[in-house]
Amino acid sequence: MSLLTVGSVAFDKLETPFGKTDKIVGGAATFIALTASYFTPKNNLVGIVGSDFPEEMIKIFNEHGVNTDGLEIDPEGKTFFWHGKYHQDMNNRDTLDTQLGVFENWEPTIPESYQDTQYLMLGNMVPAIQHATLKKLRNRPKFVMLDTMNLWMDIAMNDLRKVLADIDCLTINDAEARQLSGDYSLKRAAKTIMDMGPKTLIIKKGEHGALLFQDDRTFYCPALPLEEVFDPTGAGDTFAGGFIGYLAKTDDLSFDNLKRAIIYGSAMASFCVEKFGTERIQYLSQTEINNRVMEFVQLASFEIID
Amino acid sequence: MSLLTVGSVAFDKLETPFGKTDKIVGGAATFIALTASYFTPKNNLVGIVGSDFPEEMIKIFNEHGVNTDGLEIDPEGKTFFWHGKYHQDMNNRDTLDTQLGVFENWEPTIPESYQDTQYLMLGNMVPAIQHATLKKLRNRPKFVMLDTMNLWMDIAMNDLRKVLADIDCLTINDAEARQLSGDYSLKRAAKTIMDMGPKTLIIKKGEHGALLFQDDRTFYCPALPLEEVFDPTGAGDTFAGGFIGYLAKTDDLSFDNLKRAIIYGSAMASFCVEKFGTERIQYLSQTEINNRVMEFVQLASFEIID
Repeated sequence: MSLLTVGSVAFDKLETPFGKTDKIVGGAATFIALTASYFTPKNNLVGIVGSDFPEEMIKIFNEHGVNTDGLEIDPEGKTFFWHGKYHQDMNNRDTLDTQLGVFENWEPTIPESYQDTQYLMLGNMVPAIQHATLKKLRNRPKFVMLDTMNLWMDIAMNDLRKVLADIDCLTINDAEARQLSGDYSLKRAAKTIMDMGPKTLIIKKGEHGALLFQDDRTFYCPALPLEEVFDPTGAGDTFAGGFIGYLAKTDDLSFDNLKRAIIYGSAMASFCVEKFGTERIQYLSQTEINNRVMEFVQLASFEIID
Repeated sequence: MSLLTVGSVAFDKLETPFGKTDKIVGGAATFIALTASYFTPKNNLVGIVGSDFPEEMIKIFNEHGVNTDGLEIDPEGKTFFWHGKYHQDMNNRDTLDTQLGVFENWEPTIPESYQDTQYLMLGNMVPAIQHATLKKLRNRPKFVMLDTMNLWMDIAMNDLRKVLADIDCLTINDAEARQLSGDYSLKRAAKTIMDMGPKTLIIKKGEHGALLFQDDRTFYCPALPLEEVFDPTGAGDTFAGGFIGYLAKTDDLSFDNLKRAIIYGSAMASFCVEKFGTERIQYLSQTEINNRVMEFVQLASFEIID
């Protein structure tokens, strides 16, 4: 099935306890689309960059089967830039600089050839723009997934509530789930959030795994304990890309398949953090992915007898 | 198989966002022995209390099949008392008062009838006393498990290192694993700690579950998302009691059975937090326990196809 990813394509400059980068390519849609490319062949991207964006990266997208017809290049502007520094524990980071560039005031345009989209991933950005993008698709996709963040809960809650009412699946982290619901218990928070619209909710807990909620069902997806987290940038987007890429590939929205999808998403995220930016997820083999998924099976399997 | 639990039997006075208690019975060995009683019939307790300790509680131990021949009553002293207050998030707490009473300078005595112990649980206390207790058993038990805390890493690291060299399984939380190993990565921390002695390590992560390590194997045991955590006091000890109680019952130290044991431990801990103190774990039916374990199976099960 066809997947459309809409979101930021950007430059990141990163500092972690393990090293620094110059400007490298990042952005939510970059991580999502590259990751989904390992699963689904019909992989469409909508985003915007400036004239400073490297052609080389567009080539890399295309080599991964990502259709970039919907990637606007604004010759007058600069690509969205984020400069961040991670603390020792990698769970916290400081933003040193943000330049929205062409991403500011951008309203996505959907190429005609993307109108048959079955699976839609709305990467983290202004909620009103996410909503407007969804409405530009003449036929509502079969499955609409959205990522957001605490910033929009602070400054655009009304718009966020509106788009939440129209989507199928929301992915946020545990602190954001607590903020959005006003409830500390993630179990109760999940119910409150699902009542806002999305029938499926994924709460990401970083090194503690992720929770998948739907109706009265809950699945706890573990995270693989890693020797080294080199750079967590993009891990959440890579997770989302693996999840929705697997769904688009299998076109099966049963809870059992959502569980498999979240395992694939977690496996992909565990690769992402091993190197800076997209470096690790650009060059993965199917065997590496399958072996990593088998590590999750080993990690989580048990059998109750009696 | 026979299980011996050695540790504190105490009074707790608790304040949580949900209410307060007067002095109620608590203590590591109390939670461990009561919980283990649901699994193993040969359940021996070594501890010390003062003349203020209620006979009613000794009756409750005995009704659960806990042998209290090793529970010393010091008519001259007072029972160990702890007064604590939990913060809103339940993950942090302040100690308002601690009175060690008869627990201070106590050296455990092992009744002759306990000498056949196969499974030994050393609850959290002074590491040198834990070590001395282990040495008082003429035949080394088949499986020795130890709980400890950050305080002993701060003030008695040498003694802790000595007892760690002689045990089979250590249970600590994630912050303590990081402190003990000096490593932020729990995967590397686990290797470092297992090199100190224990071949099996359990890292407790509270609402994020627990990790079981042995050689190169890792198992991620999820925690059940709960609507309400009423009082977390004793959850770690209840977890340990369920774990070692299940092992003593099944007498099977294979990794597959350790995984089952950790699921039972987690299930028991999920009951513990539903009420104050030992209230919930005093009155459990086998059906309740089995149903709760089945919730863990539902929560963690997935199947990879392809």
